[in-house]
Amino acid sequence: MGMVGGGKDAFIGAIHRIAANMDGLIELSCGALSINPEIAVDSGKSLFLPEDRIYLTYDEMITKESKLSSDRRIDFITIVTPNFAHFAPAVMALDNGFNIVIEKPITFTLDEAKQLKKKVEETGLILCLTHTYSGYPLVKQAKAMVAGGAFGKIRKVWVEYPQGWLSKLTEREGNAQAAWRTDPKRSGKSGCMGDIGTHAAHLAEYITGLKITHLCADLNIMVEGRALDDDGNVLLKFDNGAAGVLMASQVAAGEENAISIRVYGEKGGLEWHQHEPNTLLVKWLDQPAQILRAGGNYGDHLSSFATQNCRTPGGHPEGYLEAFGNIYRNFALTLSSKLSGSKPTKEMLDFPSVEDGMRGMAFIDNVVASSKSDKKWTEHAL
Amino acid sequence: MGMVGGGKDAFIGAIHRIAANMDGLIELSCGALSINPEIAVDSGKSLFLPEDRIYLTYDEMITKESKLSSDRRIDFITIVTPNFAHFAPAVMALDNGFNIVIEKPITFTLDEAKQLKKKVEETGLILCLTHTYSGYPLVKQAKAMVAGGAFGKIRKVWVEYPQGWLSKLTEREGNAQAAWRTDPKRSGKSGCMGDIGTHAAHLAEYITGLKITHLCADLNIMVEGRALDDDGNVLLKFDNGAAGVLMASQVAAGEENAISIRVYGEKGGLEWHQHEPNTLLVKWLDQPAQILRAGGNYGDHLSSFATQNCRTPGGHPEGYLEAFGNIYRNFALTLSSKLSGSKPTKEMLDFPSVEDGMRGMAFIDNVVASSKSDKKWTEHAL
Amino acid sequence: MGMVGGGKDAFIGAIHRIAANMDGLIELSCGALSINPEIAVDSGKSLFLPEDRIYLTYDEMITKESKLSSDRRIDFITIVTPNFAHFAPAVMALDNGFNIVIEKPITFTLDEAKQLKKKVEETGLILCLTHTYSGYPLVKQAKAMVAGGAFGKIRKVWVEYPQGWLSKLTEREGNAQAAWRTDPKRSGKSGCMGDIGTHAAHLAEYITGLKITHLCADLNIMVEGRALDDDGNVLLKFDNGAAGVLMASQVAAGEENAISIRVYGEKGGLEWHQHEPNTLLVKWLDQPAQILRAGGNYGDHLSSFATQNCRTPGGHPEGYLEAFGNIYRNFALTLSSKLSGSKPTKEMLDFPSVEDGMRGMAFIDNVVASSKSDKKWTEHAL
Amino acid sequence: MGMVGGGKDAFIGAIHRIAANMDGLIELSCGALSINPEIAVDSGKSLFLPEDRIYLTYDEMITKESKLSSDRRIDFITIVTPNFAHFAPAVMALDNGFNIVIEKPITFTLDEAKQLKKKVEETGLILCLTHTYSGYPLVKQAKAMVAGGAFGKIRKVWVEYPQGWLSKLTEREGNAQAAWRTDPKRSGKSGCMGDIGTHAAHLAEYITGLKITHLCADLNIMVEGRALDDDGNVLLKFDNGAAGVLMASQVAAGEENAISIRVYGEKGGLEWHQHEPNTLLVKWLDQPAQILRAGGNYGDHLSSFATQNCRTPGGHPEGYLEAFGNIYRNFALTLSSKLSGSKPTKEMLDFPSVEDGMRGMAFIDNVVASSKSDKKWTEHAL
Repeated sequence: MGMVGGGKDAFIGAIHRIAANMDGLIELSCGALSINPEIAVDSGKSLFLPEDRIYLTYDEMITKESKLSSDRRIDFITIVTPNFAHFAPAVMALDNGFNIVIEKPITFTLDEAKQLKKKVEETGLILCLTHTYSGYPLVKQAKAMVAGGAFGKIRKVWVEYPQGWLSKLTEREGNAQAAWRTDPKRSGKSGCMGDIGTHAAHLAEYITGLKITHLCADLNIMVEGRALDDDGNVLLKFDNGAAGVLMASQVAAGEENAISIRVYGEKGGLEWHQHEPNTLLVKWLDQPAQILRAGGNYGDHLSSFATQNCRTPGGHPEGYLEAFGNIYRNFALTLSSKLSGSKPTKEMLDFPSVEDGMRGMAFIDNVVASSKSDKKWTEHAL
Repeated sequence: MGMVGGGKDAFIGAIHRIAANMDGLIELSCGALSINPEIAVDSGKSLFLPEDRIYLTYDEMITKESKLSSDRRIDFITIVTPNFAHFAPAVMALDNGFNIVIEKPITFTLDEAKQLKKKVEETGLILCLTHTYSGYPLVKQAKAMVAGGAFGKIRKVWVEYPQGWLSKLTEREGNAQAAWRTDPKRSGKSGCMGDIGTHAAHLAEYITGLKITHLCADLNIMVEGRALDDDGNVLLKFDNGAAGVLMASQVAAGEENAISIRVYGEKGGLEWHQHEPNTLLVKWLDQPAQILRAGGNYGDHLSSFATQNCRTPGGHPEGYLEAFGNIYRNFALTLSSKLSGSKPTKEMLDFPSVEDGMRGMAFIDNVVASSKSDKKWTEHAL
Repeated sequence: MGMVGGGKDAFIGAIHRIAANMDGLIELSCGALSINPEIAVDSGKSLFLPEDRIYLTYDEMITKESKLSSDRRIDFITIVTPNFAHFAPAVMALDNGFNIVIEKPITFTLDEAKQLKKKVEETGLILCLTHTYSGYPLVKQAKAMVAGGAFGKIRKVWVEYPQGWLSKLTEREGNAQAAWRTDPKRSGKSGCMGDIGTHAAHLAEYITGLKITHLCADLNIMVEGRALDDDGNVLLKFDNGAAGVLMASQVAAGEENAISIRVYGEKGGLEWHQHEPNTLLVKWLDQPAQILRAGGNYGDHLSSFATQNCRTPGGHPEGYLEAFGNIYRNFALTLSSKLSGSKPTKEMLDFPSVEDGMRGMAFIDNVVASSKSDKKWTEHAL
Repeated sequence: MGMVGGGKDAFIGAIHRIAANMDGLIELSCGALSINPEIAVDSGKSLFLPEDRIYLTYDEMITKESKLSSDRRIDFITIVTPNFAHFAPAVMALDNGFNIVIEKPITFTLDEAKQLKKKVEETGLILCLTHTYSGYPLVKQAKAMVAGGAFGKIRKVWVEYPQGWLSKLTEREGNAQAAWRTDPKRSGKSGCMGDIGTHAAHLAEYITGLKITHLCADLNIMVEGRALDDDGNVLLKFDNGAAGVLMASQVAAGEENAISIRVYGEKGGLEWHQHEPNTLLVKWLDQPAQILRAGGNYGDHLSSFATQNCRTPGGHPEGYLEAFGNIYRNFALTLSSKLSGSKPTKEMLDFPSVEDGMRGMAFIDNVVASSKSDKKWTEHAL
């Protein structure tokens, strides 16, 4: 693995490294870790990278790595730069035969996402998008139960992602994270919806297997002086007729990172909270609710999609880093299978793709358009 | 107290009697308990009413009771008939000098509610509307904290009322409750929103002290063959600029009666769930969240509005019946004060009024209108 | 009903009145509400008792009431005086043909309890002891499930009752409740164990249907200057070989009234917390845990002992007062049946008896003896 | 790092590797991964170890590694064999200048533990014992709060560790984990208390900073045919006079791995559950309870011991593997400091030591002795 971005002043780069490192399947071999040369070098050294594989630009990295012998050269590149700087290294990586892992949102614009999708299809390479929350075992369990018809037809989806960390004008108080995430030049046309609303939309579609077809958005800037939305509520329509609500906020003062979802069908429903990710509450119309637990002992109640994404037995809580690690692991196992000529299992293939990335970019476009519109419903077109 | 409706085949009448009876302040003295004479008589007897005060119609009851001497005659009449049969007895009661307690929604139409409001103002009598959920001590605490500015300006309101009991076409399976609540002739123009959405809207306005000014509704009939909405999601705008979402559903399979609310302001937020009504979660931007408890020991942390509505010390859970009892008790204390010429305290006066009833009827009208409209926002006009 | 004790300066008397009053089956007709004549009269008036039935002593009350005609005279007497003043009025009531309800602990000494038991057997009258916590619907459900063999043989019982209100020397700060409960002359030989440990022991035996045979107690006075135990931990042995722990504390600072219990058998276990009394967590060895809910919709999953002790459908929380009310209601229904010559159902008969009271007194004796002993195990003999 | 034990048929070895690997500070360089040569080789290969550093015995590994140049040779050895096979490799490692990490219980007997302690003192090397639960950030926060006097003098400690996985005679059903853990020859003189009771005892002493001085144990074999205790309840006395209870069970059917603790002092208390490890409930006598959260935003409320053991911001749940990783990281940082001649911080030094291991072994001895004794209290002597 080579990494673009993620120097020591960054948050998400470190997370990617822990996640990639978790299962002993992936080794960080090189990096262009910062646009600041000093940080790039320092960061590389502190990660014990060999000096000749600490690069100053992604261009240099991709160029030089592609010339290494196949036993030395990296298999894939991870891109963890801010949103606006995803596209160029991604294209160059694919053009040079490298598979990629990319932080979400996949690109800066929907158009770039479409180009990337085309490029992926042309090259036959693998692109993995780190929508972390779909990496949790019990999120996969939820998906498997819905897909298996446990709840009958889905009628209602209720997904929310409240955070409170932008309740003040933090971007003016020297918080670098806040600064780029609220800056249209670096984040894109949406703040809250682009940053976390896309996670919520992905989670809803991932679990239900449904597609959002229409949305009605009310985006807000709650903190005066901010340039992008920091809060929003969105009504949803799904392709099977289900109704939904998506709430995302970065001004829900006192909330941490509380993405959660509830789904109701004809026969029952489910509830999952990222803050307690090892519990899936399953509710039934005619029976007591059940508490499903990650790694649970009870034989065949959990889907293979859940059990194969647990590292420990029930009662040993796994969390965000493990969910992130599952994305990397499944990607790595798929890549290994491909490289060794075997067929990856369906469980290995279960990681977010360029398609999901494109839907995310369209979601940003459409939710912003809807918010500006007087019409109730805006089509969620790609 | 005299009761109109609430015979032994009814649900809510029994609840009203327990609630009224709870504090030894109110005595059931007479009733016209059913339009079915046999049920009316049987019910009266089983409640130990004197035979001469078991009436067959509200008309008979009001007429005869108003002729009794003031020491025998009832002080107020409770109306617990289905929605369509609230208005006529209410008007007659007021016309004959009786105060009234009335189950929500206050009337069948907004116009009736307006007439009732006028009548209340003319007569100077008291009308109490049983929006039960505002009777919980910690709901009152929440209101007091918002009013006291604990959270700064309110930015976001998130209120939900999921039930699952209408997930099937229960009204065709001999469920009398389901039958009248899904019947436009007896319930009015809305099912779910009229029955429980109004509770959610009231709770949001009660706690925040804000008024909804605009709404954008998506009402659904999820169970084929049903005549009225059984599900809905509504975006809200409040008069201070806050944004909100109201969700109400009777097809959230597996849910019981899970009304809950979250409110966020500049400095923190609060969260309350009716299923665990003695806990109020208070969240802060810069400090750990706090768990406020009904009847809590910690001196002056609870508002007088909360403490005066508790009957037991902390750790002795009070519930729905006690919340209902609080509505009755505050009404009774206000009435006693008035009758004895003293001034009721602000805590006594804290029960829902005809004004709240009128707003509820307008909410039904506007939410139904919005749902039919292609426009995003509909004004919440009275 | 006539009441001995429970004047307006008392806590538990008011609770008894609300509980007795809840279902419209019982009417307070007379009282000797305080040993202080002024309080007795004032309290009687404020409860709207007729003046000629406000008595100054229980002796006067029992004497005069027993001379009333059977249609006027009360059916039973409730005794809510401090522990040391239970026995005398109880004996006199029974001697004069009155059934009794009595607050726990039943008497001041085990010997008195034994005498009372004999008296009850001789007179054939009914004695009901208000061990409130066994009145909760889901406690009854727990008992029914254990009795039905759902969990197989019970192996482990874990009951606890932490309170924090005596964490300081509150009895010296003018707290009347604290004063009598920590005073050997009024409370008896144990403080914490007598006051709340007996509840825990009763709950454990009630739910499991087992009897404690041996105990090993460590009682403590944690607050310097206190005369009676304010904390204790007790190992238990049950008659089927199960092992257990009972913890009771009044110095668990920050706790309210958090009685809870866990029971484990061969196939699963259960968990119940009084703070959230409408939920019973049921755990299984080979399946996901289930959440049983009071008044739950799911047909036949709840025992008749649970459903007949609910007043509202699922999702309308009932609490402490309703549990207390269930004790009174079942007693009243049993008494009515008896008076009318019919046979009470097994659900009606499900209220604590003089037998339970005697076991409670023995528990106090034995736990105090064990605490003083160097031997590990003390027999729980009656 | 070199590893002794932990081949691919083992559970805890894999956990150690993930934990060690998590922060990029430690690299697995060699191993003697199984006493079965084939498994040893296979396991080494699947972990990408160089072939010349895959050893067949610990003896071979220590001998050969100690001859490598200092830049190649490993800094420490991790011992993850079953209990009976800890001592010999530990001694040999220390004798050859290797620091060690060792799975608990530290040895097979208390005497071995004492010898090991002496050896550590003589060599000046570092021994780290993986009592995982003390690696959680909020366990460290709890310790820091108690140490800082937040709760005043501690009065009561309530620690429990219920599991259900041995509810049947699983050791006879081909479960290898169950087989060695219930076998006196491999596990030692206690089953449940040795395996998990020691964790609970360590957690209690770690958080409170107190030492257990006396104990009164009731150990049980609940499943017929088992050779060692599978359940136990223990009364505790601490060196400041506090009272406690320790419960550990492997037959609490339906429980996973639910170690939790409650501690009460004069002014308040705390509650922590491993199943929800990122939440620490803090209770106060005079104020509402607070919810402390790992990685919480609220500036200076968390101790440096907590914050330095978090990898992610609040709301990104970390779990068991991260807690385990903290043990390794703190050990590695301490080792690095020492090797580089600098002084480790107090936060780095916060990992379990040989002293803790010796106390654990004494706990096993004393708890077994107490269980056999008729005397109530057994001294917890080393």
